[in-house]
Amino acid sequence: MQSKIPVGILGATGVVGQRFVQMLEHHPWFEVAWLAASDRSEGRAYGEAVRWRMKTALPLRVAEMRVSPASPAGAPKVIFAALDAAIAADLEPRFADASCAVVSNSSALRMHSDVPLMIPEVNADHVKLLECQSWRRKSHGFVVTNPNCSAIGLVMALAPLHHQFGIETVMAVTMQAVSGAGYPGVASLDILGNVIPYIAKEEEKMEEETLKLLGKLDGGKVVPASFGMSAHCNRVAVEDGHTESVSVKLKKKAGQDEIIRSWNEFRSVPQELQLPSAPAQPVQYLASADRPQPRFDVDAGNGMTASVGRLRPCSVLDWKFTVLSHNTIRGAAGAALLNAELLKVRGYLD
Amino acid sequence: MQSKIPVGILGATGVVGQRFVQMLEHHPWFEVAWLAASDRSEGRAYGEAVRWRMKTALPLRVAEMRVSPASPAGAPKVIFAALDAAIAADLEPRFADASCAVVSNSSALRMHSDVPLMIPEVNADHVKLLECQSWRRKSHGFVVTNPNCSAIGLVMALAPLHHQFGIETVMAVTMQAVSGAGYPGVASLDILGNVIPYIAKEEEKMEEETLKLLGKLDGGKVVPASFGMSAHCNRVAVEDGHTESVSVKLKKKAGQDEIIRSWNEFRSVPQELQLPSAPAQPVQYLASADRPQPRFDVDAGNGMTASVGRLRPCSVLDWKFTVLSHNTIRGAAGAALLNAELLKVRGYLD
Amino acid sequence: MQSKIPVGILGATGVVGQRFVQMLEHHPWFEVAWLAASDRSEGRAYGEAVRWRMKTALPLRVAEMRVSPASPAGAPKVIFAALDAAIAADLEPRFADASCAVVSNSSALRMHSDVPLMIPEVNADHVKLLECQSWRRKSHGFVVTNPNCSAIGLVMALAPLHHQFGIETVMAVTMQAVSGAGYPGVASLDILGNVIPYIAKEEEKMEEETLKLLGKLDGGKVVPASFGMSAHCNRVAVEDGHTESVSVKLKKKAGQDEIIRSWNEFRSVPQELQLPSAPAQPVQYLASADRPQPRFDVDAGNGMTASVGRLRPCSVLDWKFTVLSHNTIRGAAGAALLNAELLKVRGYLD
Amino acid sequence: MQSKIPVGILGATGVVGQRFVQMLEHHPWFEVAWLAASDRSEGRAYGEAVRWRMKTALPLRVAEMRVSPASPAGAPKVIFAALDAAIAADLEPRFADASCAVVSNSSALRMHSDVPLMIPEVNADHVKLLECQSWRRKSHGFVVTNPNCSAIGLVMALAPLHHQFGIETVMAVTMQAVSGAGYPGVASLDILGNVIPYIAKEEEKMEEETLKLLGKLDGGKVVPASFGMSAHCNRVAVEDGHTESVSVKLKKKAGQDEIIRSWNEFRSVPQELQLPSAPAQPVQYLASADRPQPRFDVDAGNGMTASVGRLRPCSVLDWKFTVLSHNTIRGAAGAALLNAELLKVRGYLD
Repeated sequence: MQSKIPVGILGATGVVGQRFVQMLEHHPWFEVAWLAASDRSEGRAYGEAVRWRMKTALPLRVAEMRVSPASPAGAPKVIFAALDAAIAADLEPRFADASCAVVSNSSALRMHSDVPLMIPEVNADHVKLLECQSWRRKSHGFVVTNPNCSAIGLVMALAPLHHQFGIETVMAVTMQAVSGAGYPGVASLDILGNVIPYIAKEEEKMEEETLKLLGKLDGGKVVPASFGMSAHCNRVAVEDGHTESVSVKLKKKAGQDEIIRSWNEFRSVPQELQLPSAPAQPVQYLASADRPQPRFDVDAGNGMTASVGRLRPCSVLDWKFTVLSHNTIRGAAGAALLNAELLKVRGYLD
Repeated sequence: MQSKIPVGILGATGVVGQRFVQMLEHHPWFEVAWLAASDRSEGRAYGEAVRWRMKTALPLRVAEMRVSPASPAGAPKVIFAALDAAIAADLEPRFADASCAVVSNSSALRMHSDVPLMIPEVNADHVKLLECQSWRRKSHGFVVTNPNCSAIGLVMALAPLHHQFGIETVMAVTMQAVSGAGYPGVASLDILGNVIPYIAKEEEKMEEETLKLLGKLDGGKVVPASFGMSAHCNRVAVEDGHTESVSVKLKKKAGQDEIIRSWNEFRSVPQELQLPSAPAQPVQYLASADRPQPRFDVDAGNGMTASVGRLRPCSVLDWKFTVLSHNTIRGAAGAALLNAELLKVRGYLD
Repeated sequence: MQSKIPVGILGATGVVGQRFVQMLEHHPWFEVAWLAASDRSEGRAYGEAVRWRMKTALPLRVAEMRVSPASPAGAPKVIFAALDAAIAADLEPRFADASCAVVSNSSALRMHSDVPLMIPEVNADHVKLLECQSWRRKSHGFVVTNPNCSAIGLVMALAPLHHQFGIETVMAVTMQAVSGAGYPGVASLDILGNVIPYIAKEEEKMEEETLKLLGKLDGGKVVPASFGMSAHCNRVAVEDGHTESVSVKLKKKAGQDEIIRSWNEFRSVPQELQLPSAPAQPVQYLASADRPQPRFDVDAGNGMTASVGRLRPCSVLDWKFTVLSHNTIRGAAGAALLNAELLKVRGYLD
Repeated sequence: MQSKIPVGILGATGVVGQRFVQMLEHHPWFEVAWLAASDRSEGRAYGEAVRWRMKTALPLRVAEMRVSPASPAGAPKVIFAALDAAIAADLEPRFADASCAVVSNSSALRMHSDVPLMIPEVNADHVKLLECQSWRRKSHGFVVTNPNCSAIGLVMALAPLHHQFGIETVMAVTMQAVSGAGYPGVASLDILGNVIPYIAKEEEKMEEETLKLLGKLDGGKVVPASFGMSAHCNRVAVEDGHTESVSVKLKKKAGQDEIIRSWNEFRSVPQELQLPSAPAQPVQYLASADRPQPRFDVDAGNGMTASVGRLRPCSVLDWKFTVLSHNTIRGAAGAALLNAELLKVRGYLD
């Protein structure tokens, strides 16, 4: 039996860091071998440093690991990064420089022209951008990113439509879960019985990342998709699961059944490669009038499936629908993990 | 001192009926003289029949009133109606036939061509439609309606823009409070920690009512506004206050300051007439990046002011913003009350 | 391979009825063969009649079953009953009369002197009361009940203490989940951001059932435990999981470690018999200062384990602690299922 | 017209500090003249330094005031202190040393033998402890405290019973609002849909403060009440208002009506003196089976009245009931304000 690839987690004590720990437990290819967090946690046992917020138990082996300093010395060659953007902007390049494969959930480098921003079902070919990274050429290190939690469910729903019919315009309004803000994140006094119609920088990320994700690789760079895209981002009193009300205009007219079929039949690289974290069905259409709902649908496909519902005509654009995806699984840790699995199969982790 | 006009409440035990009772206590012109509800409540003291959900105490005088049968015999000539649509469709015409002025919050007759659908700040002139009503001609009875709770805040925000710049397109996504569904209404198991992306018939109402409200009276009928209008309606775990993410395209280009000024300076008939329930400022713009929020802003202007915030460019239409209004005050009982006050000043209640 | 025992569900469309359907899917011994609900549902496919509130999908086979009238004709011989008390009082005896084994979650017959009120870990021997039932003697039919959802977690925590040290006094204050009230149950307007310090008849049930459960079978009847027992019941905005603050006075003084050990080491009949729904550890003590919590601990042991924490001295009685259990699994459907499993092993379902 | 007494607020940017600002606006005797907060805020305009969480608007005059350093130089002679305990332990004595009257909401000095812990309705005579304070003798400065937010409602409900019938034993279980933890305080991820059965040091405070408050001044010290008192403290998803389930044993047996009367008729020093913040009725009994509830009753008496309900026999002690009080008004800022008003009338602020 082949031994697993040792991986490290940068930002291991945060909500997304914890998801990495949870999802890597029992992973067939990867094994947590190194954990780093802020100075405050350094040197302590992870089980003491972390305020564990997952619903499954903290794995004993990981609980007993020491938290390392957040520097490349002694780190394994594959790093999952769950850092705040400001810190990531400094640390991720240092790890890439030190020949690490940095699989990042941070926004810091997502829009850099030579950094792939990937959803393996949507734009697995963008991985080739890696060849342009100076780190890669120098040391074999590199950085790969996944999108913001608000963009990922939307783009999974848009991708089959874009490929089959062409997208001309998108309007999306989010109702985002509190776990998207990390821990402690949103104060209970701010959100109990309330809606907050603002999440700093979220709309900008959602708009530009959507266009890059659905863009085309052309030579050494990604030409972003050119359709109109507007986002409104709101926070609601939901634990996990970003719900989005979306209107879309298509280039080629399509009927309701065709669209539903394009979602239900959508399969892509991760499904073909049978990547361990790939859901059997990346996008599912729910026929019930009042679905998807976070309560019932957030864990579809172990949190890796985007659920779509309520497809109906839009009197301004062509169609309206609702999309829901799990913001800390498909929208964060699971997204990075699927990226890493793709990288492994493509030979980038050798 | 002149005596007050006796008024009746149809559907007095529901959430909106209770708001009528609450708002009519201490009203300078009107006085509750008659209450009707379902058969089950008939003959009982109101205080026993109602499951009082308001935060102020049930007025003792009203608590002791007997609940009357829901029929015109013995009812006063001014009736506030807070009935389910199916029942309203039958009962409201019967009261109008019996020469009552029916000031209704129900959706049943809103879209009838000779029934005014009014927000006094927006289309007070539509009251002239009354002259076309057969009831009016026959018996002096009539029916006036106010819009759905999801339409009213939106239309208050749109009206000054429509008048000043002309509206070409509107996209609106609601996050609606549970009180909008009445009592018991939304089950806690359905909404705690959840979003429900569906409210039966709400999107249709919101779209068609918006166009009628912003339409023009032409001869004996209203020509609805002709702009594109699309709505998505969601339910969230908020007690009172519908929040809406809105994008709008204007006919005449307008700057951010001009738009904000058009909201803050918007005054209309109820303010000129100093109607008792009219807010000093019907629309207020909040400069904070994260407002309006139900927690803080729902009671602005005693629940009669619509709060707008976050005006920023939209990359698909021209502008995006958030609007919030109180769904059972400005969006229901307060709306009807303001209609009744206008009717009185215009001589329709004489 | 032996075929499974066909079972019926009375009250199949309610929240507890749905739990039965969910928990019986893949059950090794039982198979849903018959579903009954109110007249309104009769004759319809279950999938259409039910408003499915479980987070797992409604099993297709069950969805397609027709809802039968709630009468013994055509019903299988093993019936799980999840009826409102008033209806149960009438229907359960009719099914027992018709030679059915009625395994009931209803409160209607729990306190009847010849009806076993059982938690198999606590008082499996009470099953012998069945021999006294007139139905049993006449037709082999009988009724067995499980306790109220508020009593069951408490009694599981008390049982090892009672056996080992003797209980003298118990004070318990509950904070109960909304699912305990069924569906639609508690209105969202009543509970969002609120506490309701009252649940009709709950305190009475909790007090008397606790004493019967911890009572002794003496000849043909149960002599209830004689300790002082007082309960306060509150409703809080939690979906699943009743949390209880408990103070207890013991007859024989016990140290903290002894008590914790008595919980952690507690094993009983269901564990010895390896009943399919029996949790490996019926009571678990959590050492963290702030546990148990519904968010993290409600699903322990597939919802069949009671979690206890915060054992500390009480300055009035001897000890204080917090107990949590899943109110619709261990507190309802799972409780009945475990009773049925015990009955089968004991030969009562032959 | 006499000019108002200038007062300062220590810890002005926190939730309780904000309540002081809110409640002092329009106060007939006091006027905010000085605001201090942490170093981070120093020198900034209060309106910029604070994240205003009150539902009324931040008064313009206060918004424009500069935040001063938290040191006595330049501070007025009357100081409301809303500091964390660790900081208060250091700062409050420094202000008292500098001849300030420190009216504190902090727990730091509450249990000091020469510091009055006061609820003016309950133990106004304890103010005489001030004479024993070394600060007072040296500089006229002193420290007066009010109890923890969990103790105050309970003690208001207990006081009339203790005076009239004598208390022998009290068991209290709290369900406390999130605002009691300040801002940002409880993370939304911790409390949405959850109960947290632990608040650090809360039970200890509640138990010892209750006994001191109901104790007797004897010479220069308070002899605490000697009854048994046990508390369990829980956090629930409520914004404002601590609800408590209480059982009590009385020395002299009392009937239900007597007890209810003792609450409803309870009047004390603040009512006699007509202190500006004193509620007309400090304790009100609500006859409804399901009250008090935070949603409806938290603002009774402008948040200064404790609401009691559900008085019924307890099978362990004598009586059970529910008490609710507003934790940041009666339980914090309003408590201190009432203390200050008493001090003024008694001549301690001259």
